[in-house]
Amino acid sequence: MIKYPNCEKEYVKKDKVKKPVSFTSANRGMSLEDDINKSNEYYLSKEIALIYKRPTPINVVKVDYTKGAKIIDAYYEKQSTTDYNGVYKGHYLDFEAKSTKSKTSIPLANISVHQVKHLKNVIKQGGIAFFIMYFDSINEAYLISAKFVIEFFENNKRHSIPISDIKNNGYLIKQGFNPRLSYLEIIEEHFLK
Amino acid sequence: MIKYPNCEKEYVKKDKVKKPVSFTSANRGMSLEDDINKSNEYYLSKEIALIYKRPTPINVVKVDYTKGAKIIDAYYEKQSTTDYNGVYKGHYLDFEAKSTKSKTSIPLANISVHQVKHLKNVIKQGGIAFFIMYFDSINEAYLISAKFVIEFFENNKRHSIPISDIKNNGYLIKQGFNPRLSYLEIIEEHFLK
Repeated sequence: MIKYPNCEKEYVKKDKVKKPVSFTSANRGMSLEDDINKSNEYYLSKEIALIYKRPTPINVVKVDYTKGAKIIDAYYEKQSTTDYNGVYKGHYLDFEAKSTKSKTSIPLANISVHQVKHLKNVIKQGGIAFFIMYFDSINEAYLISAKFVIEFFENNKRHSIPISDIKNNGYLIKQGFNPRLSYLEIIEEHFLK
Repeated sequence: MIKYPNCEKEYVKKDKVKKPVSFTSANRGMSLEDDINKSNEYYLSKEIALIYKRPTPINVVKVDYTKGAKIIDAYYEKQSTTDYNGVYKGHYLDFEAKSTKSKTSIPLANISVHQVKHLKNVIKQGGIAFFIMYFDSINEAYLISAKFVIEFFENNKRHSIPISDIKNNGYLIKQGFNPRLSYLEIIEEHFLK
């Protein structure tokens, strides 16, 4: 699961110093979100696609206007949609990113009923809906259609999707320096053709 | 300009009691956002389109984890994209809503350079980019392409777009009970055909 960026900031505040970009397996788990964001920056800079991370919805309870609109009481809301959406060649794209340390499966616990509902709506409206699933242990990221994940979610009693199902039904994402995760290649090849 | 929903909540806290839905000119100015949201709910319920208001980006400075992740220091960030995006018949839609009390023009002051840049990117990627502009004084809402607004923004020394330009280059949005603002009719007729 991708952590709320701002929560995470709190946790890692101590070592905020920027490290040089490395691409080893060791730091991959924590940085799936970062890799996707960087890939999206690359896609935007090359005018290939425009894909944004949605801001985390925050429920603001109290604002102090004597201090220039300082929010002094607020809570993170549960994301009821997905992490990312955007446009590629006119098509609407919508996806969620999940990572796991497990070697064998992706737990479904982090996928909410609201997200499933949202992705179903995206599919109904002709959008391209998918997941990016990252296995930290083997440093492999897969793109898999939301349709497959939703069917699994609704028709299985298992609480996780086995990696074999991901491999059989998804597509391995090529990793590199730029873009770090070349996921639009897969959209082009398998979702648009 | 549409106010940040949560700021607004602070201002109007006193009369939070729900009033029956009326559709008079009097309460229209404040409720453009509400009307668009309600229209989007209608479109979703009829499986016509999936369009969301983006959450307001908030820069979280401090979280109190002793109180269940209570945010105690945060600030509203300036929206660098637009208010709404979504999918209609597979097409990516992206738009900004502006309202004015002026009878003669829409001020450009509320449109940021970041938003213009964002909308240009949407257009480049084949998305459908537009504005919904609402004149409170005459209770008329217009849909106008982002392309027109951007060209005006970049090539004019005026600080506002005259209503005559909006009328000549945009499309009057039919108002009703459901959807309150039938803006997808215009997308269908003038942007997809």
